[in-house]
Amino acid sequence: MITSAGNAQIKRIIALQKKSKLREEENVFVVEGQKLFEEIVQNRRSVIEKVYVSESYRMKCDLTDGLLVEVVSDSVFRSISETVTPQGILTIVTMPDYHLEDILKQDKVRLLILEDLRDPGNLGTIMRTAEAAGFDGIILSRESVDMYNPKVVRSTMGAIFRMPFFYIEDFNEMLKRLQNTGFILYATHLHGAVDYTETAYAKKTAVLIGNEANGLSEQSAHTADYRIKIPMEGQVESLNAAVAAAVVMFEVKRQQNEAGNQV
Amino acid sequence: MITSAGNAQIKRIIALQKKSKLREEENVFVVEGQKLFEEIVQNRRSVIEKVYVSESYRMKCDLTDGLLVEVVSDSVFRSISETVTPQGILTIVTMPDYHLEDILKQDKVRLLILEDLRDPGNLGTIMRTAEAAGFDGIILSRESVDMYNPKVVRSTMGAIFRMPFFYIEDFNEMLKRLQNTGFILYATHLHGAVDYTETAYAKKTAVLIGNEANGLSEQSAHTADYRIKIPMEGQVESLNAAVAAAVVMFEVKRQQNEAGNQV
Repeated sequence: MITSAGNAQIKRIIALQKKSKLREEENVFVVEGQKLFEEIVQNRRSVIEKVYVSESYRMKCDLTDGLLVEVVSDSVFRSISETVTPQGILTIVTMPDYHLEDILKQDKVRLLILEDLRDPGNLGTIMRTAEAAGFDGIILSRESVDMYNPKVVRSTMGAIFRMPFFYIEDFNEMLKRLQNTGFILYATHLHGAVDYTETAYAKKTAVLIGNEANGLSEQSAHTADYRIKIPMEGQVESLNAAVAAAVVMFEVKRQQNEAGNQV
Repeated sequence: MITSAGNAQIKRIIALQKKSKLREEENVFVVEGQKLFEEIVQNRRSVIEKVYVSESYRMKCDLTDGLLVEVVSDSVFRSISETVTPQGILTIVTMPDYHLEDILKQDKVRLLILEDLRDPGNLGTIMRTAEAAGFDGIILSRESVDMYNPKVVRSTMGAIFRMPFFYIEDFNEMLKRLQNTGFILYATHLHGAVDYTETAYAKKTAVLIGNEANGLSEQSAHTADYRIKIPMEGQVESLNAAVAAAVVMFEVKRQQNEAGNQV
């Protein structure tokens, strides 16, 4: 049992929670909680490197055989946990490996494209919503918040192990590449020309959502095929990014389901 | 200038930030930031009791005449601020006074009803979204998070000064009262019988959203006229409460706009 906060493994976990660079170098990230642990086991998208459990957790729960489990004293466990009331289980897993080509070559695809999204809670919620709305993948600009940030991981509620996502170095080049492979790009924009409910979404649809404070860059908005807007009443200046994404994604789903039903 | 953290006014501000009971007793709450300050001045829903500004703020900005302004040293200001980088302005205002009767007697009304919503960020986002979706008011069960919680106030982005809201002691009695005044109640429910896009929303529509973890109570779901569901793909178990509220509210708006256009 690990009883010292100075233990090298403990120090590594804390560093992995905080530093995206270290996560990238080692190709692993930290997943906290029972439910997410079960998601990993069930979805098999990530390989478990090691499981850390608190002493109290160990006394209460059985763990699957064949896993590398390390028991940690309750007080040390609190120091590696990012939550106020730790559940007592923390897993180090490899990053899931998704393939963009497999998604792009399909006939019907719904992609969500995020440019410089910054808020961890927003990103987690968006990922969870995208899965529910039947989206096939998420593309993010390199400057967006890291998907493996512990707060993002938690707020995806497991969608991180199911929804393919890709960080792209040259964002504008990717937009053009999508257009060249048949995608129509719909940019949500405060000054959009078309109401999002009056847009007919293509079979290969990509919805663009911009940064929380500044929206989409001029360049991205310009590259897009359509600028769509969500009409707002009252004096609201803009919607929360996760809300805007949800409203548009579920409208795409509604329209395409309706079209599907008519065939 | 106030330079001591032990100053009675400073202690009161900190207490007002933390204690909902004190806010209720004194009928005031704390609003931080420049943008929200401007909302108060503009919307005139609340009376300003006093404005506190930091020393640096005072040197940079002019303040409207006729306001009771107290200057606070920068270090003390940081102790009353709830944000990491304080803008240097904090206002004590009276709670806005909204009248439910005025709303209920209208012909066309959209209400959002929240049962035991707990997350401050969710509530703020929901309020902002409700205004954008053209909703007329929000009714909350007494156990819901306090709208005057500083985190809620911030995340409403000013909608708190424009969107009427009401905390109700006897929640179920209120639902029945709404039905008696002609409202149709649509309860979002994981096991809803009707797709939310296939529901025709009434002129007096009330949308019910439940607690983040447990959804609506049995009693409320039972009282509602319809249980609606948002169909979800993938393995997502539920949507974030603010996302679910947004998707349904914008569908109500979409349908009613469409109906409006056809007339």
